Amino acid sequence: MASITVWNEYIHERENDRVADLYPDGIHTYIADLLAEAGHDTSTATLDEPENGLPPGALEDTDVLLWWGHLAHDEVEESVAERVATRVREGMGLVVLHSGHHSKPFRKLLGMPADLTYREAEERERLHVVDPGHPITDGLPESFVVPEAEMYGEPFTVPEPDRLVFISWFEGGEVFRSGCCYRRGKGRIFYFRPGHETYPVYHQEEIQQVLRNATDWASPVAGSPYPTECRPVDDPAEDIDGYEP
Amino acid sequence: MASITVWNEYIHERENDRVADLYPDGIHTYIADLLAEAGHDTSTATLDEPENGLPPGALEDTDVLLWWGHLAHDEVEESVAERVATRVREGMGLVVLHSGHHSKPFRKLLGMPADLTYREAEERERLHVVDPGHPITDGLPESFVVPEAEMYGEPFTVPEPDRLVFISWFEGGEVFRSGCCYRRGKGRIFYFRPGHETYPVYHQEEIQQVLRNATDWASPVAGSPYPTECRPVDDPAEDIDGYEP
Amino acid sequence: MASITVWNEYIHERENDRVADLYPDGIHTYIADLLAEAGHDTSTATLDEPENGLPPGALEDTDVLLWWGHLAHDEVEESVAERVATRVREGMGLVVLHSGHHSKPFRKLLGMPADLTYREAEERERLHVVDPGHPITDGLPESFVVPEAEMYGEPFTVPEPDRLVFISWFEGGEVFRSGCCYRRGKGRIFYFRPGHETYPVYHQEEIQQVLRNATDWASPVAGSPYPTECRPVDDPAEDIDGYEP
Amino acid sequence: MASITVWNEYIHERENDRVADLYPDGIHTYIADLLAEAGHDTSTATLDEPENGLPPGALEDTDVLLWWGHLAHDEVEESVAERVATRVREGMGLVVLHSGHHSKPFRKLLGMPADLTYREAEERERLHVVDPGHPITDGLPESFVVPEAEMYGEPFTVPEPDRLVFISWFEGGEVFRSGCCYRRGKGRIFYFRPGHETYPVYHQEEIQQVLRNATDWASPVAGSPYPTECRPVDDPAEDIDGYEP
Repeated sequence: MASITVWNEYIHERENDRVADLYPDGIHTYIADLLAEAGHDTSTATLDEPENGLPPGALEDTDVLLWWGHLAHDEVEESVAERVATRVREGMGLVVLHSGHHSKPFRKLLGMPADLTYREAEERERLHVVDPGHPITDGLPESFVVPEAEMYGEPFTVPEPDRLVFISWFEGGEVFRSGCCYRRGKGRIFYFRPGHETYPVYHQEEIQQVLRNATDWASPVAGSPYPTECRPVDDPAEDIDGYEP
Repeated sequence: MASITVWNEYIHERENDRVADLYPDGIHTYIADLLAEAGHDTSTATLDEPENGLPPGALEDTDVLLWWGHLAHDEVEESVAERVATRVREGMGLVVLHSGHHSKPFRKLLGMPADLTYREAEERERLHVVDPGHPITDGLPESFVVPEAEMYGEPFTVPEPDRLVFISWFEGGEVFRSGCCYRRGKGRIFYFRPGHETYPVYHQEEIQQVLRNATDWASPVAGSPYPTECRPVDDPAEDIDGYEP
Repeated sequence: MASITVWNEYIHERENDRVADLYPDGIHTYIADLLAEAGHDTSTATLDEPENGLPPGALEDTDVLLWWGHLAHDEVEESVAERVATRVREGMGLVVLHSGHHSKPFRKLLGMPADLTYREAEERERLHVVDPGHPITDGLPESFVVPEAEMYGEPFTVPEPDRLVFISWFEGGEVFRSGCCYRRGKGRIFYFRPGHETYPVYHQEEIQQVLRNATDWASPVAGSPYPTECRPVDDPAEDIDGYEP
Repeated sequence: MASITVWNEYIHERENDRVADLYPDGIHTYIADLLAEAGHDTSTATLDEPENGLPPGALEDTDVLLWWGHLAHDEVEESVAERVATRVREGMGLVVLHSGHHSKPFRKLLGMPADLTYREAEERERLHVVDPGHPITDGLPESFVVPEAEMYGEPFTVPEPDRLVFISWFEGGEVFRSGCCYRRGKGRIFYFRPGHETYPVYHQEEIQQVLRNATDWASPVAGSPYPTECRPVDDPAEDIDGYEP
């Protein structure tokens, strides 16, 4: 079982009754409980804690970080965002949820702004699996519906994903690459689109299954040594004509 | 633990003393024993058995198939090669070893001839990990040496791999993409270059580690339903103007 | 300007009045005329000609081959399909249209069956550009509508494309990866979904723009030497200890 | 013909006689002259100019920017690096040369530190083409030698390239992914390893051919509209049950 940290800016839940009803202790607590039930060791962190809840060393033992943010991406400290990105490169998994597409760690790691189109119209979203051999789809049907969703539409300005897992169909005519896998260094990144705060998206079984699967998929592997800086090799493994180390 | 089948054309070992000394019971038995020690349930199949040892149903319970062939690729029955390719698409892993680059299943699944340059000169090969976050590199150093190798050189006429794990350096001046990951349908394919029959390549610890890792990596995942034929959907999930299913 | 061959099985147009009205001289002639107007040197070939219109040497001077087939994929001679695949690997572009997803050359080159779901319900298809920097999108809007389309739905059992250019939205609730780029050897392959024979799809300006763009994109590049067989290199560029070529 | 800007930090040439002998007017001028001879419209910019020679608007008309830096990556203004990255996303090509792997624009666009190993031992580098159908290889042989090179070795901590064009072999036993293609937004990025300032690398014909080819490849395409911010779509193209825009 993995060590999981769920980060949340934790603003909507304290300012909007509908969100508070859905997630009385915050989205972070709701998701952490869900993953604890799956057997993981979980903790949470929020924006208003010192160093946004992620001081130096806080992520040393985290296998996978889940990230939910929306209103206050800019209030995340630059040093915290860098710390997250560095840990991902070293091997920590990162699962970026819904409006987290605009979060600092995600944009830093992708090198792209991750813009998109959007609409809040309580419309139907139908997620289609396009990569049925991907472990993030374990136990899912070929497609499933989120009955009330905020729409996100293409073009989604991200690098072409390493693997595209889900494509969403929206009632209003749009499509979206809703499940995107990336690797940066030793770390795995999964962006998962659904999760609007005013609809009970994380209460839905298929969505919970994706969160569990994504956490498993993003967990670190051992791999081989990963360099974190440039390094001279003055003593070559093979002879070089005329060179004395 | 996985269910493993090791396939071998099993010719060199019966015709060449040097190979027989290295692999008295055949390369297939040697590798099967190695993977059995790692806890897997293993079996073997060879070219001269009926239907090349892979009759209908033989692979139904195989999680990962390893394939070693060289002299007699053309003698593999067309229906057997198709059977292997079909099982890969359904989810069986395939680890293609050394001269298996020209095997029928590999070429069928890639859609490419997989040609290369070669030389038998007992030269040094140095394998460098270029993807240290890949599970096939678990426990490996940044690079390691095969002291006596047959050279394979670029251009290697395969599709660009989904992930490139190893690049080989050869004493005579060539390089090669020696560890290539592909996916076809639900199945994972790993091509691993080292393994020349007249050198004790599979006796080497790092090589054995790669075989163990590759077997783990190529093992099937559950995923979501995988279609094996075209299918009409006359009754759409959403209303279509003027259409009555 | 490129040298273009348009291949068509040419059956629907001679058996179905609606198709004959749309394409009196066949889909191949219609598309060839369109590309001739764009300045290309065009010719056509059909299933009922000797060697399916593509005898040895016929494709030597073809830069890009467009392929339309549906009812009679199995009647294409095996040797002709191999010839096409070989020419693609050597550098010829291949644009596979609509029901050509099941054509022999496409399946051979991909190593996958290219299955999908389908429905003929005169429904709306909306193609969204997901890669606005791709030359196949030159001059297109962010999305456009095919008013009456046959539906193709996911999962589409092909290798993950090198670049995904279009995703289709369908009225009935499906999505599809409608513009997929692949490379095999030196050749470029583009699969383009729209094109059902009973609707005036190729009469539509945006579709014609895609055909023109795809032809330009798939045209051969010079590149560096491409090997078409394995080749020994007995005389290495660098000295090998103890080896005399 | 394209509009080209060559950027150089321009320090080595003014502090080191050997470099000054090779490039009396700076590497930027040498490369700009080379590309002017190929018919391009060229200009240059250097670190010590106001805003590092790239004030707002300076890149508006640039099709491709080439970047050479080594000692003073940190002195490039943050706003200038952002300006370059933004222009790349909008479609400007970027060719990053040699020690530019650590430049701010490259790291920002990749989201990775681009670390590597290195050695200055006047050793032989042999560049092998692994993608002979790529236009950056036009007119090149299967491999070619840089007689005296600084070594860069794996692991190179970058995202897996979209296309890998060259792999280098080094006399001392290392390999390197020396020609890496990326896309960010509408812009094309090519990293090209050779180019150490104390060896006459850019005087070599094959290297010059790569620079010409890379400039052509990285030139902007028209494509379709590219969004530079999130955008609401309150008025959907398709009806949504119960929703009034």
